[in-house]
Amino acid sequence: MKLQKPKGTVDILPGESNRWQYVETEVRNFMDLYDFNEIRTPIFEQYELFARSSGESSDVVSKEMYDFFDKGNRHIALRPEGTAGTVRSYVENKLYAPEHEKPVKLFYIGPMFRYERPQAGRQRQFHQIGVEAFGATHPMQDVEIILLAHDLLQKLNVQNFELHLNSLGNAEVRKNYHEALVNYFEPFKDELSDDSKQRLQVNPLRILDSKDKRDQELVADAPKLRDYLDDETNQHFGFVLSMLDELGINYQIDDNLVRGLDYYTGTIFEFMIEDKNLWQSKSTVLAGGRYDKLVEEFSGPETPAIGFGIGFERLMLVLQQQNPEMFATEGPEIYIANVGDNSVATVLKLARSLRNQRIKVVFDVSQRKLKNQFKSADRHQAKYILTIGDQEVEKQAATLKNLEDGSQTVVDFKSLNKNALQLLKEIN
Amino acid sequence: MKLQKPKGTVDILPGESNRWQYVETEVRNFMDLYDFNEIRTPIFEQYELFARSSGESSDVVSKEMYDFFDKGNRHIALRPEGTAGTVRSYVENKLYAPEHEKPVKLFYIGPMFRYERPQAGRQRQFHQIGVEAFGATHPMQDVEIILLAHDLLQKLNVQNFELHLNSLGNAEVRKNYHEALVNYFEPFKDELSDDSKQRLQVNPLRILDSKDKRDQELVADAPKLRDYLDDETNQHFGFVLSMLDELGINYQIDDNLVRGLDYYTGTIFEFMIEDKNLWQSKSTVLAGGRYDKLVEEFSGPETPAIGFGIGFERLMLVLQQQNPEMFATEGPEIYIANVGDNSVATVLKLARSLRNQRIKVVFDVSQRKLKNQFKSADRHQAKYILTIGDQEVEKQAATLKNLEDGSQTVVDFKSLNKNALQLLKEIN
Repeated sequence: MKLQKPKGTVDILPGESNRWQYVETEVRNFMDLYDFNEIRTPIFEQYELFARSSGESSDVVSKEMYDFFDKGNRHIALRPEGTAGTVRSYVENKLYAPEHEKPVKLFYIGPMFRYERPQAGRQRQFHQIGVEAFGATHPMQDVEIILLAHDLLQKLNVQNFELHLNSLGNAEVRKNYHEALVNYFEPFKDELSDDSKQRLQVNPLRILDSKDKRDQELVADAPKLRDYLDDETNQHFGFVLSMLDELGINYQIDDNLVRGLDYYTGTIFEFMIEDKNLWQSKSTVLAGGRYDKLVEEFSGPETPAIGFGIGFERLMLVLQQQNPEMFATEGPEIYIANVGDNSVATVLKLARSLRNQRIKVVFDVSQRKLKNQFKSADRHQAKYILTIGDQEVEKQAATLKNLEDGSQTVVDFKSLNKNALQLLKEIN
Repeated sequence: MKLQKPKGTVDILPGESNRWQYVETEVRNFMDLYDFNEIRTPIFEQYELFARSSGESSDVVSKEMYDFFDKGNRHIALRPEGTAGTVRSYVENKLYAPEHEKPVKLFYIGPMFRYERPQAGRQRQFHQIGVEAFGATHPMQDVEIILLAHDLLQKLNVQNFELHLNSLGNAEVRKNYHEALVNYFEPFKDELSDDSKQRLQVNPLRILDSKDKRDQELVADAPKLRDYLDDETNQHFGFVLSMLDELGINYQIDDNLVRGLDYYTGTIFEFMIEDKNLWQSKSTVLAGGRYDKLVEEFSGPETPAIGFGIGFERLMLVLQQQNPEMFATEGPEIYIANVGDNSVATVLKLARSLRNQRIKVVFDVSQRKLKNQFKSADRHQAKYILTIGDQEVEKQAATLKNLEDGSQTVVDFKSLNKNALQLLKEIN
């Protein structure tokens, strides 16, 4: 019987993993410049946590959760997203206490789990980059978060992305707008798609981002959220927009952008990409918004918050399509070929010394014939090959051949051990 | 109701997470020098995989597994260790095929899960660094792996570590030795500890590393594995030892070192640390060995293999005890303080420009009073503070104060935007 990986999961193999490492390092370095710090919450949490944050009736919780009872009969679940665990951790570790500078600026990168039908780019184990800032009400926080998102995509050389923005206003605004939508859609109830009929009961805002054509026609004339916004929200949102203007960041105000999750309040945003090589229609790679009430719902003190998430797999698809040269890999600097048991110790010592000098080295642990070692050096795309036999061991020197131009130089081991980088520079 | 993290898990918070990042980056860079490449297998696998690799009756599988049935009624389990998934992936992705250079040299870093009683340094979600090399029989492979382990610990500045070595020989050797041990212990059966009574039936080799005092007395006179080794194993192991001698790497041959898992064959090793500040007795931080039969057991072709694992949490304990200065963190280079709404756009633009120049910048998204911003700059341990008000916006220049020595310099924004690194160097 052959054992296979579970359905909806993938192995990230060498080559692909190097690309992941590259992007993760870029992201971590970028976050540091903004003074955002990493948080790592457990892979699983109490089931209750997600039931409460995403809503017991949401698809995520009711259909897609990897939940189970552990050997102590605790109902736990693999995390389907990162915000709930981060908020839980913020409250449990009292990061709201005065000894922690506000806002508390956090990010995470890691695996998430949803039991969905696997499709191209949709896996049961997938990965997200998430950013969350706790403690600042001022719209300057919204601007910094959107700026961070924008400049991160730019830094990664993502092309053709669009920023879509909207504001949900406060609880009263959303309540009034909710009523207005129900009143508007009720007479057309029978014409709505099945999904939207259901949404009309639970969350009529979701009808606004329906992909159904007939729904969209009805949405066109629906009341606009912006007409219901209060002065405070308008002022807050206006500040965000004026600063984005100052920074020369293009955006579109999108009345129908409402985001799926119930916990958003105030400013919400999505970065979408149009790329016909990837997708038929515009696709979201980064999305987020304010959620000023969630910390309280998790029994923490009143704490404004804003954050966003990036789908890692989707981001990787975009980068490999738009910017493949970003992922060029390098072979070893030196391949050490050798003949005879007498030279093994010399090879090991040289390799060790070079690696200690941060030079990437490969030698043949299988001790194949020299011809096969030369082939291996080519397949590894080594820059140089150094060949060592009895004579070289005796002389403590060997020929270093440049595999690109074929040029050869005799180098003594003492110099290689002392300063190989300098020596390689002189040769070149 | 307050929600807490699941029992036996931890949150890795800012500060601690920076230390994890640091060690992970060092490890990844180090692996690259040795041409070992990262593999990322799924967090969960088929239950069957671990049942087969660790043995259905092992503690790991029978008592400690986080296993459950998914919504499609598949029996899956959170991975308790990394080798099984790596071997499964090696076979499933046909990394044994000729287009992949041999040996295939892999490493991984990630979370593992065991339902054990949580103790200091033992968690239900813990983390491992693992290294595996597939395809080389030659003892030079053993040497490279042990050298890699040794020099990685050295690179991380781990102190007082000892390398313990042993060789298990081939299947026939182990069979003969198994019989000899049973014959030797059988007469003393009633004097053995309860655990060892059981081991006598299942795996008498495990009696050799019993911590029980009475067991240890009996073990002292037990037959030695080395007296049972065949010529081939002796030659292989002798080569490994002579190369370690050549490289000046100290080791101890440890007759009672047998490693817990059934799948080891040939050379096995452990790096132990003696540190009274950490542990009463010597503790293993890194362990591994040859497992030349496991790939076949997973329906792959005959493939020699060798690898090791490092307990990440344990390694972090050691590093924080022995080498805390390794983890010194740096505050932002510049804190931009400001007064008045008119200066906000200038602050955002300057911060963006500086961050694009890879300079870490913090400003106050909450727009508190200047006095509070100054305090915040101190708490952030910023190197410089730049203060901007209406006048500075007008002049496009501001005073940059060095918070270490109190010196002040007027800098114009144009120069900061152009080459801030150069400007900071000139000031210093």
